[in-house]
Amino acid sequence: MARKVFILNGPNLNALGMREPGVYGSKTLQDIERDCRTYAETLELGIDFRQTNHEGVLVDWLHEANESAVGAAINPAAYGHTSIALHDAIRAISIPVVELHLSNIHAREPFRHKTMTAPVAVGVICGFGPTSYTLALQALANHIKDQ
Amino acid sequence: MARKVFILNGPNLNALGMREPGVYGSKTLQDIERDCRTYAETLELGIDFRQTNHEGVLVDWLHEANESAVGAAINPAAYGHTSIALHDAIRAISIPVVELHLSNIHAREPFRHKTMTAPVAVGVICGFGPTSYTLALQALANHIKDQ
Amino acid sequence: MARKVFILNGPNLNALGMREPGVYGSKTLQDIERDCRTYAETLELGIDFRQTNHEGVLVDWLHEANESAVGAAINPAAYGHTSIALHDAIRAISIPVVELHLSNIHAREPFRHKTMTAPVAVGVICGFGPTSYTLALQALANHIKDQ
Amino acid sequence: MARKVFILNGPNLNALGMREPGVYGSKTLQDIERDCRTYAETLELGIDFRQTNHEGVLVDWLHEANESAVGAAINPAAYGHTSIALHDAIRAISIPVVELHLSNIHAREPFRHKTMTAPVAVGVICGFGPTSYTLALQALANHIKDQ
Amino acid sequence: MARKVFILNGPNLNALGMREPGVYGSKTLQDIERDCRTYAETLELGIDFRQTNHEGVLVDWLHEANESAVGAAINPAAYGHTSIALHDAIRAISIPVVELHLSNIHAREPFRHKTMTAPVAVGVICGFGPTSYTLALQALANHIKDQ
Amino acid sequence: MARKVFILNGPNLNALGMREPGVYGSKTLQDIERDCRTYAETLELGIDFRQTNHEGVLVDWLHEANESAVGAAINPAAYGHTSIALHDAIRAISIPVVELHLSNIHAREPFRHKTMTAPVAVGVICGFGPTSYTLALQALANHIKDQ
Amino acid sequence: MARKVFILNGPNLNALGMREPGVYGSKTLQDIERDCRTYAETLELGIDFRQTNHEGVLVDWLHEANESAVGAAINPAAYGHTSIALHDAIRAISIPVVELHLSNIHAREPFRHKTMTAPVAVGVICGFGPTSYTLALQALANHIKDQ
Amino acid sequence: MARKVFILNGPNLNALGMREPGVYGSKTLQDIERDCRTYAETLELGIDFRQTNHEGVLVDWLHEANESAVGAAINPAAYGHTSIALHDAIRAISIPVVELHLSNIHAREPFRHKTMTAPVAVGVICGFGPTSYTLALQALANHIKDQ
Amino acid sequence: MARKVFILNGPNLNALGMREPGVYGSKTLQDIERDCRTYAETLELGIDFRQTNHEGVLVDWLHEANESAVGAAINPAAYGHTSIALHDAIRAISIPVVELHLSNIHAREPFRHKTMTAPVAVGVICGFGPTSYTLALQALANHIKDQ
Amino acid sequence: MARKVFILNGPNLNALGMREPGVYGSKTLQDIERDCRTYAETLELGIDFRQTNHEGVLVDWLHEANESAVGAAINPAAYGHTSIALHDAIRAISIPVVELHLSNIHAREPFRHKTMTAPVAVGVICGFGPTSYTLALQALANHIKDQ
Amino acid sequence: MARKVFILNGPNLNALGMREPGVYGSKTLQDIERDCRTYAETLELGIDFRQTNHEGVLVDWLHEANESAVGAAINPAAYGHTSIALHDAIRAISIPVVELHLSNIHAREPFRHKTMTAPVAVGVICGFGPTSYTLALQALANHIKDQ
Amino acid sequence: MARKVFILNGPNLNALGMREPGVYGSKTLQDIERDCRTYAETLELGIDFRQTNHEGVLVDWLHEANESAVGAAINPAAYGHTSIALHDAIRAISIPVVELHLSNIHAREPFRHKTMTAPVAVGVICGFGPTSYTLALQALANHIKDQ
Repeated sequence: MARKVFILNGPNLNALGMREPGVYGSKTLQDIERDCRTYAETLELGIDFRQTNHEGVLVDWLHEANESAVGAAINPAAYGHTSIALHDAIRAISIPVVELHLSNIHAREPFRHKTMTAPVAVGVICGFGPTSYTLALQALANHIKDQ
Repeated sequence: MARKVFILNGPNLNALGMREPGVYGSKTLQDIERDCRTYAETLELGIDFRQTNHEGVLVDWLHEANESAVGAAINPAAYGHTSIALHDAIRAISIPVVELHLSNIHAREPFRHKTMTAPVAVGVICGFGPTSYTLALQALANHIKDQ
Repeated sequence: MARKVFILNGPNLNALGMREPGVYGSKTLQDIERDCRTYAETLELGIDFRQTNHEGVLVDWLHEANESAVGAAINPAAYGHTSIALHDAIRAISIPVVELHLSNIHAREPFRHKTMTAPVAVGVICGFGPTSYTLALQALANHIKDQ
Repeated sequence: MARKVFILNGPNLNALGMREPGVYGSKTLQDIERDCRTYAETLELGIDFRQTNHEGVLVDWLHEANESAVGAAINPAAYGHTSIALHDAIRAISIPVVELHLSNIHAREPFRHKTMTAPVAVGVICGFGPTSYTLALQALANHIKDQ
Repeated sequence: MARKVFILNGPNLNALGMREPGVYGSKTLQDIERDCRTYAETLELGIDFRQTNHEGVLVDWLHEANESAVGAAINPAAYGHTSIALHDAIRAISIPVVELHLSNIHAREPFRHKTMTAPVAVGVICGFGPTSYTLALQALANHIKDQ
Repeated sequence: MARKVFILNGPNLNALGMREPGVYGSKTLQDIERDCRTYAETLELGIDFRQTNHEGVLVDWLHEANESAVGAAINPAAYGHTSIALHDAIRAISIPVVELHLSNIHAREPFRHKTMTAPVAVGVICGFGPTSYTLALQALANHIKDQ
Repeated sequence: MARKVFILNGPNLNALGMREPGVYGSKTLQDIERDCRTYAETLELGIDFRQTNHEGVLVDWLHEANESAVGAAINPAAYGHTSIALHDAIRAISIPVVELHLSNIHAREPFRHKTMTAPVAVGVICGFGPTSYTLALQALANHIKDQ
Repeated sequence: MARKVFILNGPNLNALGMREPGVYGSKTLQDIERDCRTYAETLELGIDFRQTNHEGVLVDWLHEANESAVGAAINPAAYGHTSIALHDAIRAISIPVVELHLSNIHAREPFRHKTMTAPVAVGVICGFGPTSYTLALQALANHIKDQ
Repeated sequence: MARKVFILNGPNLNALGMREPGVYGSKTLQDIERDCRTYAETLELGIDFRQTNHEGVLVDWLHEANESAVGAAINPAAYGHTSIALHDAIRAISIPVVELHLSNIHAREPFRHKTMTAPVAVGVICGFGPTSYTLALQALANHIKDQ
Repeated sequence: MARKVFILNGPNLNALGMREPGVYGSKTLQDIERDCRTYAETLELGIDFRQTNHEGVLVDWLHEANESAVGAAINPAAYGHTSIALHDAIRAISIPVVELHLSNIHAREPFRHKTMTAPVAVGVICGFGPTSYTLALQALANHIKDQ
Repeated sequence: MARKVFILNGPNLNALGMREPGVYGSKTLQDIERDCRTYAETLELGIDFRQTNHEGVLVDWLHEANESAVGAAINPAAYGHTSIALHDAIRAISIPVVELHLSNIHAREPFRHKTMTAPVAVGVICGFGPTSYTLALQALANHIKDQ
Repeated sequence: MARKVFILNGPNLNALGMREPGVYGSKTLQDIERDCRTYAETLELGIDFRQTNHEGVLVDWLHEANESAVGAAINPAAYGHTSIALHDAIRAISIPVVELHLSNIHAREPFRHKTMTAPVAVGVICGFGPTSYTLALQALANHIKDQ
């Protein structure tokens, strides 16, 4: 059976496609999930793709990932910029976590330049729209293979 | 049927009336809801009045408002000062949102002077106690009419 | 005879209508004064509506208001962001003062986010264009009635 | 019947024991709960011991504590450093609250040096590992007795 | 004929006596002027005592003082904390200027701790209520005598 | 008839010549006005040359310039470093405004490094003494011609 | 013979009881010493209880403690917020040091929120009045036992 | 003929392999170049791979890339954190530029958290060691295809 | 017998006269003590005039003053800018304390602009050289008389 | 033979004309050079016009200018905002240097508001597009004549 | 008789050898004193080598050095980073003072990067362990010889 | 053959002797090189003495030093205050590097107080003019001997 990775999505990503298409593009989160499934197969990975608007649920899911997955990609959206709880959750688990963002956070408002989760992630990918997800999967797969 | 607006209340507002009456007055949130219903009728608006202590639930409700209401008034309470998730939620939806606070946030501790939600709201009303709610309804009604 | 309130306007508001209509709308200050008079009558208030580009004159007028009015609404414009003199003037008088702004100051340049006058005002209303004035009158009338 | 105190635990404390043992020690939260029960008996206190990864749930529980307990000890973990909602919740209730941390927050990253909840708590205890809990219970018992 | 010194008073000092007596005392500016006249006689100085709410008028008067007086005492009030124009005016003239404040500016809000005029004044006296004026006259008289 | 430009001078510039000659040179403002008139003739411009110590008067004059001139050069002196009112006035009018300073503001105290008016001016010229005025006239003439 | 711990008290603690009883309570330092002795006996510890207003003496005593005691509790008072010398002294010695404060330093002026000594102490206890001392003794006893 | 992309490397990357292997890994820049060539072929891209310790040379090369390549990947190393010249160079050219870093810059010293080049790049990839290069090539290829 | 006031002098004031005469004048501390004695007699006050280079000794003396004097004037010199211990000492005692400085602290390095002791002093006098001492005595005498 | 001045241009100015025409206009650097030559002749100056993307080369050229020219105009572009080396180079040479910028640096991103070179230049001209160059030549010619 | 220099050592240096040998090395202060004596002889200097944990004593000794020595080397340790009193003491005396540190203060915590004493010292030497002392002696000897 | 050390000099040091002699003295860099050679012989070291105005060249030379020298002394001049590239270069090589400055950087402008290279150097010597070079050689020789 394929090893599984979690792909976790934070607040407002359920609104993708209708939310500021100029910034986030016109694909919906369902479109992205489908792209991820297709791409993950080529990497021989299964994926568990989820979205929530709740910081606490993201923490819960990271703990859960630690039990049932070999790695996680997270688009923490707004919570990534301020959440010490997510920082601690990533630190508390032993599987590798890759952080990704659809938009280039460095090209937006100053409060999006800082990420609280990045220092405990393996690495960060941002700015490539939906491609950020498949790049993150690729990065995660390489990292798992190298361990 | 009357057009509907959401009136959303953030953390600790359920404790209104007993919580620091010197700062927040002696009316309960139920009293305020009643005042809002009465006032909204004069504006020919229906209201959906809710309270939660959860940031994520406020995000969920804003998305829901976008589907079923013509506008929203929000007293984000504590979350208004720090929440990028609420900022993004207001930006992600297309109905107008008015921010309000019972107390004058500029007359309190420095960490209450800044509001993360205001830049994406239509405008802000603060400092008038329960009257802030009816002023917000009036402002929202005018804004909807002008669009 | 109707109780009187002062409505004081700070620098550059005389240019309203032609000044950056995208930010401030196309109504002139005379249009707004007319709206205020009409609205004030429904509140059984008389109004004394003035504009000046001089910080010192605003201070003078606040002192004068204390002698001959039951309250004041002030759109301090640029001076609201830096003037300790206006802060002190509002503190020095005993009638209630409501602060208002046409534009949403939180959605503009950082130097407009802070208001030096707000901490000593009853409350603040901003972002609703000319409606900010009538909301301020309503708020002031309620506050006077509650005292 | 023994008077009851709430012992509330914030995000990631469910991972205790496996999470960075070098920082947090090898005891699990269940071990600590057991120690607390034993110690509380000597103070003639009953305890209600809970953990959640959700900021909003901590707010809910503080309100609940106000109804059914004589005091609370809280290890807010990550949320203690940023949460105005928790600050307001502690201020909104009338029972005494003691803040505690397993690790010495002043010896860690700068973003852990500040605590938003401490200014409204009775006092703070940090750095003594699981002993922080029993010291907090002792402090709370003394405080209740002195009132 | 006695040498003359200017005693210049900034914004809101005309409200003295009724303005926050807890901070500024119950004497009016007229009382203080009378005290100054009496005290100045013992120093063999004549005084020209003025008040204005206008920053520009204070600048005008400092230039005027340079022509017709041997020194000046200034209570710049609110303008002292921010005015580069007053800073430049004091620097532009050749007579000595002593700065004074009724209240202890260091014991009040942070925005009153800094004074822009002090670096170009001879010295500063604050916190002694109306006595600050007579101390300033004494200091000025000594300074003139020592030159 | 020659097109007219306003040349507006802020606080303390009336003291030029006697005020810190080491910093500002020995020419008086009258000398500079004479130089400007001569130079303006070569550019086929008429000039209206004024000075005031009042921030509000500068705002008034900028509005007036908008009615009767084709451009303005302003030496805002001290007010340029802090005045949002001047910033707004320049933004509110449609004629081009060039900012100039006698001294090199970047070589002086930090509080002179920042200019609030520059972001809304066409450009800035500083550090060349009285020559700054004729350079500003030249720049203004070129700008008007290019429009 | 009982193992000995030092209890060191910094500046102004000799004034306890008369110094701001609203903040520090009405017990004198002698009362607290007596409480400590009684409590220490139950922990089978001897105590050496001292007070000084001199930063250098606190450094001397910490060095001395390293020679003749098994641990130390220190209430550094004012010096705790700024003293790198005390920070270095605690780091230079090998016995455990517990920091304590009578008042809740996080609920007071910002300059008391930071403690320079805490990062090198085992942990910190603050806000419980004289109980802070006995809690610190308890914490120290536990720490010594666990080593 | 294959379309060409530039892969530009900044200061000290010539020391790769021997320079802090714990941070940067044991591969040399030649190893990485070889990996890039192999990977680029699968993307049907040719590569021009260069390294320099000179900020000005990186600017020169970006201009050159604009003439002869369809995109660029840049590891600006140290210069990325401070160089406005590189920021301007990327902005001045019309081909897409992807920024990459071997190490996770957010997990290192604060002066590496900020990147001056990122706001004008398409996106950023960091933290994956040599894999960062192939991910950047993939991202660049996708971006070029989508244009 | 005359009521006594303490005049306390902080570090390096023993070097007065030889220490930077350009800043501090050529009088020695003995000269100033003599001036103070003479002046105090006219105020019917006795004085206890002391100097120390030790922060702790200043704290000790303030406590002593509280027992045996009716007020104190303090020139805290360098310690005034940073000492929380002196701040607390002045707060801990009930006699009035006047702060003074020989030089104008606002005209010197930024680290001398702030005074930690001023917020708890009655008021501050600075910049008048040795005259600062006699003005402080005068201020203190007035304050004691007014109580 | 005409006296010679250097006109030095920093990074990315070689891209002028194609680089962000909205900000920098459509003239190329060659166009500007031609304008400068023509204008310089009217001032009886020869010019040596150069461009480089290398900070070190600008330093080299300033030293060279000191040997063979009577003054220099420099458009340091990006390096002007951060380069202490250029600051030192201008300070190290004895000929006058005028700083210029095409765009109004105060109207752009905050990192362009500060100029490290301005404090050691004679003065600064910015915001007038290519006219900035001829104004700078005029300013330089006047300055040389006045020396 | 040999000219004498003072070598003054600040807080915690008496603990050298046992205090964090990883940072400060294994030599004791007595070892360093011996090295200094030997080295000073080669420079034909006598030395007076002292250590204290008291800031005030360092001030006293600097004054004493001014009377009986031709120069001083000071390792102010912790006090160097914050002491304005030491800054003033060095400024108040006329002999040259060289500052030294055993460790490289720039490679340690940010609060050790700043030195308050350095701006008034001749120069600073840090990071060379006990060799810092002999280098300081060498530097002092050269400086004295050059005067 | 003598072991070799590099002595590297940064921007503007080629102008030594004529550049601000009040700050840097009247010796030329050639004079200093001669002093270094003479002194190095007594230490049985050969030296390679170079100067450049290019940051990139300093990086190149540090890499070169790693191949052919046993240590390096560097006077990074202006680049030392900002260059992360030099920081990384020193970190990337394995030979010891000593940083030196002619002037006392702590006694100059704030932008010279910070050094980016110091944290990775063995130690720093500044303020002793040309003697800084020979002291650095001595420090380097000792360090090499101790390794």
